[in-house]
Amino acid sequence: MRFSVTYRIFAPDLTEAKARAGAIALEQTVEIPRDVVPAGYIETEILGRIEEIGAEAEGRFRATISYSPDSAGRELAQFFNVIFGNSSIQRGLRVIAVDPGAEMTRRHPGPRFGIDGIRALCGRTHGGMIAPVLKPQGLNADALARLGYLCAKAGADVVKEDHGIMDQPMAPFRERVEKTVAAVARANAETGGRALYFPSLAGAPDQIEANIRFAKDAGADGLLVMPGLLGFGVVARIARDGALNMPVMTHPSFLGPYVLSPETGFDHGVMFGTLQRLAGADISVFPNVGGRFGFTAGDCAQIATACRDPNGPGRAMLPSPGGGMSVERAGDMAAMYGTDVVYLLGGSLLRLGERIGEGIAAMRAALDRVDG
Amino acid sequence: MRFSVTYRIFAPDLTEAKARAGAIALEQTVEIPRDVVPAGYIETEILGRIEEIGAEAEGRFRATISYSPDSAGRELAQFFNVIFGNSSIQRGLRVIAVDPGAEMTRRHPGPRFGIDGIRALCGRTHGGMIAPVLKPQGLNADALARLGYLCAKAGADVVKEDHGIMDQPMAPFRERVEKTVAAVARANAETGGRALYFPSLAGAPDQIEANIRFAKDAGADGLLVMPGLLGFGVVARIARDGALNMPVMTHPSFLGPYVLSPETGFDHGVMFGTLQRLAGADISVFPNVGGRFGFTAGDCAQIATACRDPNGPGRAMLPSPGGGMSVERAGDMAAMYGTDVVYLLGGSLLRLGERIGEGIAAMRAALDRVDG
Repeated sequence: MRFSVTYRIFAPDLTEAKARAGAIALEQTVEIPRDVVPAGYIETEILGRIEEIGAEAEGRFRATISYSPDSAGRELAQFFNVIFGNSSIQRGLRVIAVDPGAEMTRRHPGPRFGIDGIRALCGRTHGGMIAPVLKPQGLNADALARLGYLCAKAGADVVKEDHGIMDQPMAPFRERVEKTVAAVARANAETGGRALYFPSLAGAPDQIEANIRFAKDAGADGLLVMPGLLGFGVVARIARDGALNMPVMTHPSFLGPYVLSPETGFDHGVMFGTLQRLAGADISVFPNVGGRFGFTAGDCAQIATACRDPNGPGRAMLPSPGGGMSVERAGDMAAMYGTDVVYLLGGSLLRLGERIGEGIAAMRAALDRVDG
Repeated sequence: MRFSVTYRIFAPDLTEAKARAGAIALEQTVEIPRDVVPAGYIETEILGRIEEIGAEAEGRFRATISYSPDSAGRELAQFFNVIFGNSSIQRGLRVIAVDPGAEMTRRHPGPRFGIDGIRALCGRTHGGMIAPVLKPQGLNADALARLGYLCAKAGADVVKEDHGIMDQPMAPFRERVEKTVAAVARANAETGGRALYFPSLAGAPDQIEANIRFAKDAGADGLLVMPGLLGFGVVARIARDGALNMPVMTHPSFLGPYVLSPETGFDHGVMFGTLQRLAGADISVFPNVGGRFGFTAGDCAQIATACRDPNGPGRAMLPSPGGGMSVERAGDMAAMYGTDVVYLLGGSLLRLGERIGEGIAAMRAALDRVDG
C-alpha cells in the first residue's frame, strides 16, 4: 500500500499546478526527466503518482501524490526524503498532510508510549501535566540536580533539561544525568510521587549510542531530543527499541524555517505533530501562542490536533506548548488545549530561586481547578 | 576566544532592533529573562554579547552577537544550536555570517581534504570537475554499478550516487557499494584514471557507524551525506576521523526552507558554504541557477564565494552546482564559477543510455576548452 503526501502548490492556474505536481512526482523519486523513466517497475511502482489535484483558492492548488514504500525503504530519513527532500528547495510549495498508509505505519509505528503511556509512567491520570525546565546553561551539575530535586518535590510530572544543555564542560552529560537521577529519585521517595526525568541527549553520532545506554542504565526516565540538529532518525532509533523502552520528548530547536513562511516547508501541524509522531516522539514541544515566538492560536491548535488525532499515525501523543503559561492563563490554556497536554514552564520560574516549588505548586493548583 | 554570529533583524527602528538583539543573546544561551541571569561566570561569559549593531537599510538592521566556546561545547550540533537553535523560530531574523574564531576553528577545523585534497585524489590538477549521478532509484545494484563503470570510463572525476538511493530493497547499500567499487576500479584500471566513487550514505543512527566502516573497507573513496536528514554531526564525525580519512560531499535535500524566505533562516552562502565547511564537507552540492530550482546567479555566487573564501573557516572547499549545466553553457558556467568547481551531471545524461560516456566526454572537452 502506497503512502501519500498532500502539497499546497502556489501557481497561476491548474495547468501549471498539474505540471508542477508531475515534476514533484519525478523529483521525489527517480529525479530524471519523464521521457527517460524506464518502463516497468520503475514507471509503475517507483515513480510518484498524482492521485488528486484541484484548486483551493485563487492561485493555490492542492495535490496529493502517492509513493511506493519501496521508494522509502526502512529508514525514517529516506521516508522523509521522499516526502519532501529536494522539493523542499522549490518555491511556492508546502506539505500540508502526510498519510503514511498501512505499510509505512507498520515500518514506522509511531510513539511507543503516547498519552496513556506517559500518564501511566508519571501517575498523572487526568489533567494537564507540568514540565519545568532545568536551566540556565552555565550552571554546574550539582546546581541543575538541585533544581531537579525542587521541581520533582513540588509535583512536576516531567523534569526536563533545557535543550541548550548538552555536554558542555560546566555540566557534562554523564555527571549531570547521574546527579539529577539521584536528586529526582530522592524527591520521589519523599513525596511518594513519580516525577520523570528527561535529560537533553548529547553526543556526536559516534557517541550517541553510548549516551543513550548510559542514560538508561543511570536511571533516566526518557530523553529530550532535538530532531532539527540530531536528525529525526535519532527519535526513531530510541522509539523503536523495545529493550530500551524509553519515551522521547522532541524539541523544535533549528526547525523554525520549516514552518515560518506560508509558501514553503510544512504546515505547523505536520512539522510539530505528524512528523514527530511518525518519528516516534511521545511529547512534542513547540512555541506556545503568547510566548516569545509568533505562533498563532490557530497554529498551536493545528499542532495539538495533529498530535492527538485518534486516527493516527500510531498512538496519540502529547502536545507540549512552551512559554506563555501562567496561573492567570491556566483557564484559557485548558480551554485551548484540553487536558492531554504537557505545559513547559521555563525561565520565569527561576525567578523564585529556592522557592521554585511554590510556582509549580501554584500551577498545579490552577490546572486542578480547571480540571474540575 | 568567542565566536560570533551576524544576524539580519527586520525591525521598524534601532530601539526595537537593539531589544531584539538582546533577546537573541538570551535566547541562544541562558534562555531565561535578563533579570534572572546569575551574576559572575554565567553573566560575563555564557550570556551572548552584542558586539555591534547598526542599520543596513530601512527596516533592516545588522547585529553581531558573540558567544562563548563554553556555550557550544565540543559537539557540532550544540555549536549550531547556539548559532540559531531557538531563534530560528523567530520571524524577521536571518543569519548572514558566522565567524567561528580561533577556538571554535580548533574544535571544528573544517574540510579534511578541501579543493587541493580532492584534486590530488582524483588526479584532476586543473579545470572544472565532473560528477555524474548514478540513478534512477529503482535500478538494481548491477545496473547502478554498470552506470558507474561507464561514467568512470568516460572520465568522470567523482561518480556520485543519487541522494534518493539509500538502502532500499532494489539496491541495498552494501551490495551496491561492493559492486560499484568493483565497477569503478575496473574502469580506472582500463583508463589509468582515478575516478572517485561516493556512495550515498544510508543507515539509521545505530547502523550508520557500521555502514561508514563498510564503505571504507569495501573501497569507496568518499561519502555523500544529507545533513538536512542525517544531521550535520554525521558530516563532522566523518571529517574528523583521521584513521577513516574519507572526503565528504554534502547534499541539500530537506534544507530548502532554511534559505527560501529572505526574512528567516540563513543566507545561501552561510547554509551551503560556511555551515557545510564548518561541518567538514569537502564538496557542497546546491541547485544551480538555470536548473529546476529558483536559485539566482547571485545566490550561487554567494555560495561559491563562501565555499572557497581563502580566509576560512578551514580549508577551501568545492562548490558543486547541480542542474543547468550543458556543453553549450560550459563557457558561461566557467565564467561564473571559475575552475575550482564540481559540476553535477544528472538525469539528462541518462537519455544517452549505454552512450552516457559520450555525454561525459563532451562535457570534459567543453570544460578543457574553457580552461584554455
